[in-house]
Amino acid sequence: MSTDTKRYVPPEWAFTFHGHRCPFMPLGYRMGLLALEALGVGRDPDHTLHVVCELGEGHPQTCLMDGIQAATGATLGKTLIEKTGWGKLAATFWHPGKTAVRYALRASFLDELGKFEFFAQRKRGVEPSGIPAAVTQEVVDWSLGLSDDAIYSVTPRPDFVYQPVKGSFNKTLCAKCGECVFERYVRVQDGKPVCIPCSGYLR
Amino acid sequence: MSTDTKRYVPPEWAFTFHGHRCPFMPLGYRMGLLALEALGVGRDPDHTLHVVCELGEGHPQTCLMDGIQAATGATLGKTLIEKTGWGKLAATFWHPGKTAVRYALRASFLDELGKFEFFAQRKRGVEPSGIPAAVTQEVVDWSLGLSDDAIYSVTPRPDFVYQPVKGSFNKTLCAKCGECVFERYVRVQDGKPVCIPCSGYLR
Repeated sequence: MSTDTKRYVPPEWAFTFHGHRCPFMPLGYRMGLLALEALGVGRDPDHTLHVVCELGEGHPQTCLMDGIQAATGATLGKTLIEKTGWGKLAATFWHPGKTAVRYALRASFLDELGKFEFFAQRKRGVEPSGIPAAVTQEVVDWSLGLSDDAIYSVTPRPDFVYQPVKGSFNKTLCAKCGECVFERYVRVQDGKPVCIPCSGYLR
Repeated sequence: MSTDTKRYVPPEWAFTFHGHRCPFMPLGYRMGLLALEALGVGRDPDHTLHVVCELGEGHPQTCLMDGIQAATGATLGKTLIEKTGWGKLAATFWHPGKTAVRYALRASFLDELGKFEFFAQRKRGVEPSGIPAAVTQEVVDWSLGLSDDAIYSVTPRPDFVYQPVKGSFNKTLCAKCGECVFERYVRVQDGKPVCIPCSGYLR
């Protein structure tokens, strides 16, 4: 394994976080590393970077997003990562003062990838943690042997607009349930502040 | 620190993942551990558990969700965690065959917590990674000294319904951009399969 390839292997904690071994968490990790380099920024300890993933639900390979979280620090808990629900294996990485960049997995790469035994087992309903380690490692190693360009298409997105949400620490108590609600989400009913689920307004 | 309290301290990798030290990632970690025990299940290596968080955006303390991801294995990448956008510090944990359970941070706890210097600095715009370690540790240690009941209100949710999305591995190529799209998200334009962004349909 070359030095360049070794750095694409996620640290052990990223596998612990993710919960199982699979090819897509590492592919997201590599995508995240490459995107940070393209932007010229480091992993985000706080709240600046923003990643818009084009994945959805009810399809495989979403594990990509755990690799992206691990590599970039754009985590769900820091509200730095979101999904468009488009069912595409792509993500755009945004940082203030930089040109946003989109990474997508190439269809040609996905076609070859899909031929590995790992995916035959997944389609039969075997969960990733139940697939023999050698079967998983085979496809992970194959990916690691490919060039960045063989896996990802990269598009600068000077047109990409992202406006960070204005934040506020203000919160109040819901007049019905007595729980805390942040002000942005307070609704009013009979002149009293209520939370959304108590209001019945749905949003 | 008692044995019982020590287990509420997130492992070092969870802080690495999160990117900074703060009180809310550990509070989410503890919530996640307690919820798994209430459900009687272990950390999810694959795709079974589901967590519905009531948090939103543009407010602090969302870091809770990174602690929940770390403790439970219900990660964004495995599509096991979602947000309602209600601006509330609460989450419901669901597992098939178990009674779902909701954990919320008590208003009384949040009031006391908000008096610590850590939050004064956050309100002045200091990012968590810029706050002196002793200031952060003070509030983390204070939380650790409290009982579970002083922090969380817990409600069994036998009424809570969650229906896992039916998955499919089928994908096709968008006739416009040539990229892969999972079938659930394919749209049709002039009789041809297209992805949502190429379709202009928005969703």
